[in-house]
Amino acid sequence: MAEKTGLYSVKFSNPVNIKTVSSVVGTMEGEGPLGEYFDIRVNDNLYGEKTWEKAETKFAEKAVEEVIKKAALNTGEIDYILAGDLQNQAAASCYGVKKFNRPFFGLYGACSTFGESLALGAAFIDGGWGKNIVCETSSHFCAAEKQFRFPTELGNQRPQTSTWTVTGAGAAVLSKEKSPVVITGVTSGRIVDLGITDANNMGAAMAPAAADIIYNHLKDFGVKPSDYDRIYTGDLGTVGQALLIKLLKEKDCDISEIHRDCGILIYDGKKQDTHAGGSGCGCSAAVFSFIFKKFLEGAYKKILFVPTGALMNPTSVMQGENIMGICHLLRIERRA
Amino acid sequence: MAEKTGLYSVKFSNPVNIKTVSSVVGTMEGEGPLGEYFDIRVNDNLYGEKTWEKAETKFAEKAVEEVIKKAALNTGEIDYILAGDLQNQAAASCYGVKKFNRPFFGLYGACSTFGESLALGAAFIDGGWGKNIVCETSSHFCAAEKQFRFPTELGNQRPQTSTWTVTGAGAAVLSKEKSPVVITGVTSGRIVDLGITDANNMGAAMAPAAADIIYNHLKDFGVKPSDYDRIYTGDLGTVGQALLIKLLKEKDCDISEIHRDCGILIYDGKKQDTHAGGSGCGCSAAVFSFIFKKFLEGAYKKILFVPTGALMNPTSVMQGENIMGICHLLRIERRA
Repeated sequence: MAEKTGLYSVKFSNPVNIKTVSSVVGTMEGEGPLGEYFDIRVNDNLYGEKTWEKAETKFAEKAVEEVIKKAALNTGEIDYILAGDLQNQAAASCYGVKKFNRPFFGLYGACSTFGESLALGAAFIDGGWGKNIVCETSSHFCAAEKQFRFPTELGNQRPQTSTWTVTGAGAAVLSKEKSPVVITGVTSGRIVDLGITDANNMGAAMAPAAADIIYNHLKDFGVKPSDYDRIYTGDLGTVGQALLIKLLKEKDCDISEIHRDCGILIYDGKKQDTHAGGSGCGCSAAVFSFIFKKFLEGAYKKILFVPTGALMNPTSVMQGENIMGICHLLRIERRA
Repeated sequence: MAEKTGLYSVKFSNPVNIKTVSSVVGTMEGEGPLGEYFDIRVNDNLYGEKTWEKAETKFAEKAVEEVIKKAALNTGEIDYILAGDLQNQAAASCYGVKKFNRPFFGLYGACSTFGESLALGAAFIDGGWGKNIVCETSSHFCAAEKQFRFPTELGNQRPQTSTWTVTGAGAAVLSKEKSPVVITGVTSGRIVDLGITDANNMGAAMAPAAADIIYNHLKDFGVKPSDYDRIYTGDLGTVGQALLIKLLKEKDCDISEIHRDCGILIYDGKKQDTHAGGSGCGCSAAVFSFIFKKFLEGAYKKILFVPTGALMNPTSVMQGENIMGICHLLRIERRA
């Protein structure tokens, strides 16, 4: 059973085990600073398919296949798959998980979806719904640009505030079986609206939601930033990171020493010309392979993992609506 | 705690209470056979807004507002809102729930999303995540036609197999507080693909998934159709209903007497010229107000509620993919 803690959080008396993780990434991600941490690096962003959408489907499918293999499980032992992506109607996830023939829950929290899937997966494991649950999300640079901004063929110039959608997918198996890395708590996110309407400044749209959830978490658990080795946000990039640190400092909360952002870590911003950093559902999901490895190496005792999402719908933006932010937060620890 | 039952189901030793429900519908739905059962009937499908998308947002917002009011709760007493819709990026839900400022989980299971939200909401209540949870979904005929098929202004002829997307929204409050109508079990759905590519025949795309989940449920719980007063599917329409009954008969399972479909019930197919019936996330969500009332009137002891979804993405269909089906099933009972 989970225990409600404060206004927005739960903690688990029996920590939820993260049995293993997987990551399948494209060319740029494989060549980036974290390249060695990813399970599969694909040097063809079409992944042998004819369209970007089908390619993303294959990244998603491979991530699920790989994580089941790494967990040494049969597909039939997976009770549920919880997945989502940025494509309209979560298409990459739906087509990507089909062949596994497992009960499926489709999710949408923009780029925070990996956090949402881990939170709901933890609820299922903790609540007795099953023994092994796959949480997976994906994104694809070209599929995302085409859908949310402009066709890549146009060659539009990207402003410095823009982030580069990660081509790749990541997955985790949450399990009843004891493992060294565990989820001990969840803080759930509210939609936060700072009035951003620029589809090329996702960092600014997400940072207020990240500040809100981190602040709520610290309050709910009665802890301070220094109680954690790291706070990893999903894909704020450099613009969003600066804003997050500033917003929290205004509340007397300094996370500057321990804050890292998956979007900043995944690319070499200068050499790879990605501007403010990486983004997309696949960003925090793939970088989670790096974080998990660090745990196994003994680098961390306790961290916060905070996938960040910008709720952006091109039709709504054209109709004058803002791009809002949402995050989901996981408290992850090395088993004592 | 939930107890895993069979391959795809869980049952709750403490039934999850459905405290109350709400429904807000458009003109045709209000004039249909179930009109009197809906809380709010709006005689303006734009709901005073300038676009179909904003109108759907308002239907969603009103359904949440109304269900919180009917539950006699303050907004602050709602622990989570679980919502989804058919718009790209679940836009109606995101913008619709924003003002309530509660932790939010976005979901996507096509027209089965109301079932998905009740299932996950039940997991939260049962697992100790909170005391009151709002589950909500919506759809809008014009927003859906524009996004999935053709602009309504074109006046395309609709084939007889097509269904009419419900303009409206429905919500429920799941609660720790004892109430007369309860969820006692959940069967979770797999993606089922019958090779349908016709965006005007959703019933055929969903019926195999409905047959799969109903069959799995009966097997998992060791029960037969006659153990239930009714089996309500979401939005199969007449074409899908016939196929569902046929598919189950082939497995020696006859549900013809007790099967009802929310999509068939919500319109007068002949007078209202809706062809095969109603559909959309708002269909089963709104008709749930009728089912709930029937429970309160003592008409049922035990039913199955099976929102049905067609995982349809126009881009994927144009790229040669099939429209697949998925359902989520709730076992709903009058508290003994």
